[in-house]
Amino acid sequence: MKKYTGILTTALQPIIILIDLYIFFYVGDTAVREVFEETGIKSEFRSLLSIRQQHTHPGAFGKSDMYIICRLKPYSFTINLCQHECLKCEWMDLSDLVKTKNTTPITSRVARLLLYGYREGFDKIDLTMEELPAVYTGLFYKLYHKKLPDNYKTMTGMD
Amino acid sequence: MKKYTGILTTALQPIIILIDLYIFFYVGDTAVREVFEETGIKSEFRSLLSIRQQHTHPGAFGKSDMYIICRLKPYSFTINLCQHECLKCEWMDLSDLVKTKNTTPITSRVARLLLYGYREGFDKIDLTMEELPAVYTGLFYKLYHKKLPDNYKTMTGMD
Repeated sequence: MKKYTGILTTALQPIIILIDLYIFFYVGDTAVREVFEETGIKSEFRSLLSIRQQHTHPGAFGKSDMYIICRLKPYSFTINLCQHECLKCEWMDLSDLVKTKNTTPITSRVARLLLYGYREGFDKIDLTMEELPAVYTGLFYKLYHKKLPDNYKTMTGMD
Repeated sequence: MKKYTGILTTALQPIIILIDLYIFFYVGDTAVREVFEETGIKSEFRSLLSIRQQHTHPGAFGKSDMYIICRLKPYSFTINLCQHECLKCEWMDLSDLVKTKNTTPITSRVARLLLYGYREGFDKIDLTMEELPAVYTGLFYKLYHKKLPDNYKTMTGMD
């Protein structure tokens, strides 16, 4: 169970958490590319887990900092650190991360969320995703939200 | 049940959906302010529902457009349209929106998600939120994700 379970610490991105065959990273669409550039680990995007929104100062109305926390599946495991972007990068055991006091509240929370998904199924923590067409532009969009029952997806009318 | 159930259509934001006492808006932190500026409706932020990610063109690697879809609770209901930012703005019945074919796949999907939450509880569609401190900067962050059981939040060790 501890195989490939771990955490990566980098300079630009405070934490990259890797659990079993899955990588969790604080970036959205560019997660796969960034993980590879900073760590040398190849991966595939799997799902969106969480959104972190920075509270604005009273004097900085309207300014907001948002992180998208994703789940990736790695295909390689040897770390090849980018020295320009990262201070440190290593595999750690997730149980150590859950137990340690030497981390931030957010990292601790995400670690516990990952542990929950690892133990009881990633469907418990993943947002569902579906690709939908934008009729006017011809583009496609990915829409993430909590699971919608099939009868709500297909119903053509309501009372 | 149909009281205050509806949808607002604007120019800059393709759609604002209002259901019963709740507003759903395609903007994150600035949703309350934007809704007021564009519609004159006062509201309060309640939760985060969904994330819409635009698929990138093959030739536009790394470019991504993300919308955060939120749920707001309105405190006023009279529409006072901003003519500079909106083409049209009206209350519509959600059942009409779910039934109509004259809308985009994403709007239709979000409408069905709202109907599900309206009928069976907004906890079914809302992401949970918790405020956590950033130890180094002294700031606070909001973290949104699917519900984490209490025993995972409080556990101090694992097997």
